[in-house]
Amino acid sequence: MLYVPTLLQAIDLIGTFVFALSGAVAGVRRGLDLFGVLVVAFVAAVFGGITRDIVIGAVPPDALRHPHYMVLAATAGLLTFRWYPLVARFTYPVRLFDAAGLALFAVAGTEKALHHGLDGLAAAVVGMVTAIGGGVVRDVLLAQVPVVLRADIYAVAALAGALIVVAGDRLALPEAPVAILGAAVCFALRVLALYRGWQLPASRWYAKGGS
Amino acid sequence: MLYVPTLLQAIDLIGTFVFALSGAVAGVRRGLDLFGVLVVAFVAAVFGGITRDIVIGAVPPDALRHPHYMVLAATAGLLTFRWYPLVARFTYPVRLFDAAGLALFAVAGTEKALHHGLDGLAAAVVGMVTAIGGGVVRDVLLAQVPVVLRADIYAVAALAGALIVVAGDRLALPEAPVAILGAAVCFALRVLALYRGWQLPASRWYAKGGS
Amino acid sequence: MLYVPTLLQAIDLIGTFVFALSGAVAGVRRGLDLFGVLVVAFVAAVFGGITRDIVIGAVPPDALRHPHYMVLAATAGLLTFRWYPLVARFTYPVRLFDAAGLALFAVAGTEKALHHGLDGLAAAVVGMVTAIGGGVVRDVLLAQVPVVLRADIYAVAALAGALIVVAGDRLALPEAPVAILGAAVCFALRVLALYRGWQLPASRWYAKGGS
Repeated sequence: MLYVPTLLQAIDLIGTFVFALSGAVAGVRRGLDLFGVLVVAFVAAVFGGITRDIVIGAVPPDALRHPHYMVLAATAGLLTFRWYPLVARFTYPVRLFDAAGLALFAVAGTEKALHHGLDGLAAAVVGMVTAIGGGVVRDVLLAQVPVVLRADIYAVAALAGALIVVAGDRLALPEAPVAILGAAVCFALRVLALYRGWQLPASRWYAKGGS
Repeated sequence: MLYVPTLLQAIDLIGTFVFALSGAVAGVRRGLDLFGVLVVAFVAAVFGGITRDIVIGAVPPDALRHPHYMVLAATAGLLTFRWYPLVARFTYPVRLFDAAGLALFAVAGTEKALHHGLDGLAAAVVGMVTAIGGGVVRDVLLAQVPVVLRADIYAVAALAGALIVVAGDRLALPEAPVAILGAAVCFALRVLALYRGWQLPASRWYAKGGS
Repeated sequence: MLYVPTLLQAIDLIGTFVFALSGAVAGVRRGLDLFGVLVVAFVAAVFGGITRDIVIGAVPPDALRHPHYMVLAATAGLLTFRWYPLVARFTYPVRLFDAAGLALFAVAGTEKALHHGLDGLAAAVVGMVTAIGGGVVRDVLLAQVPVVLRADIYAVAALAGALIVVAGDRLALPEAPVAILGAAVCFALRVLALYRGWQLPASRWYAKGGS
């Protein structure tokens, strides 16, 4: 996932760390024990990438080949477990980093899927799953309907960035500027949605609730 | 999954579409946003097949290689999101198509597993998972105990069809008629269970409920 | 998973059976039908090993290649479904076998991951997932937060055993005695935690509960 070894690497590390924080915060809120908090932090940080690697046949997955993902997730988990109020206070800047991680994971995931021979639409879906998969499984482990399915412009931003990468690939445009454009669009969409409170609607037929 | 390019293809497409409808209906009922409804529609339609392909080592999975699965799932999701009452009114004919999809997925999944070298019992289990996996994960995403584990003759019908395919393979019978027989038995069992309200029992020791 | 064909094989079979019992008991308690109880028994017994095999690229997974896993799980499921009070009465000895299964699965899973080229820390995580993955998915299917994330010294015991195997591998110590040591430490930790009621703490910031 680390092609250019400076800015991208930094975003990848920060994105992983921030995704892990989101898992750890959710775990502390639900009363998990220390081990549970570490597991949910790890899952939130890397499950998307692991799913991508399994689906495209790139096993063992990156997240298990490079120990720094585990170290980052464990650090985020321990910090949150011990100083939860401090972590929670940084919610706002954390959301900006989360948007950066989302953008990077979506774009890098799409590129990796294209390099492994997946077609346009499928590569975009895999890129989106790379970006949102960790959050989905974080919520499933906590026995909740994943927040990404219920509210917020989040997955759609990831999908937009992924589709730009796919379009650039179809048009045989140079990879680097297209990747930057895709990531920028994803990041901008996500941050705008945060500022303005943009939401996707639920169906107007939803009323009675429950199943 | 598409060997004979007419009837089987049609059932595969209709089955995918109907499975996607089941996901979309469940998503609307639980108040998911538009994106969530599309995701659950897609998952309900293809997760069984994706699981099968991952387990037998046929990656990338079919459902990601052929964009029409995504297009069908998205269409089913959008239709349900916009005209939920109309879709809900067609519950009965939809259940017949669902039974047809169940039968086809169970039989085709079992055959694919056999072709990839899985043994009899394992191939039947993989065939059954192909048929029911999407519904299981649909319910898990909605934070519910999968309905297929709680009620109804559904998975058992799929397993019966799958076991017939395995038996035919063991006896070296010709593939096509055995497949038709397996699908017919699965379909008939499922439709009979619907008409007559057949259910599997819960354990007689179940009383106190909860965990 | 079965290298030495006597004691290890026996523990593997008993561990599988006992893990399946844990799934079946949970399934009966939640009111699943017969099929659901069998599925949860199977999942609890083999999902950890299936995850390990998918992640390291050893597909089809062992649990689908050797029918005795399915037979054992089905037997455990049927016994529990029919004679639940009897099975529940044996909770205490069952827990000792469960600890033995945990130890064996953690150690054997770590060794298999090392043999497939995974690095130290990753191999230990995969070994731990082999041991606890079935229980996690058992609880997810029952729409509950996995107990292993909430309470009890369980996963930590598995991780300790796995790390001993990894350390032995790094130091190029002979495999068999290291495996025995790792399994013994895992087993002892787990049994001591049971006897003494050891628990990991939840974060002291957990108070308001819910999400």
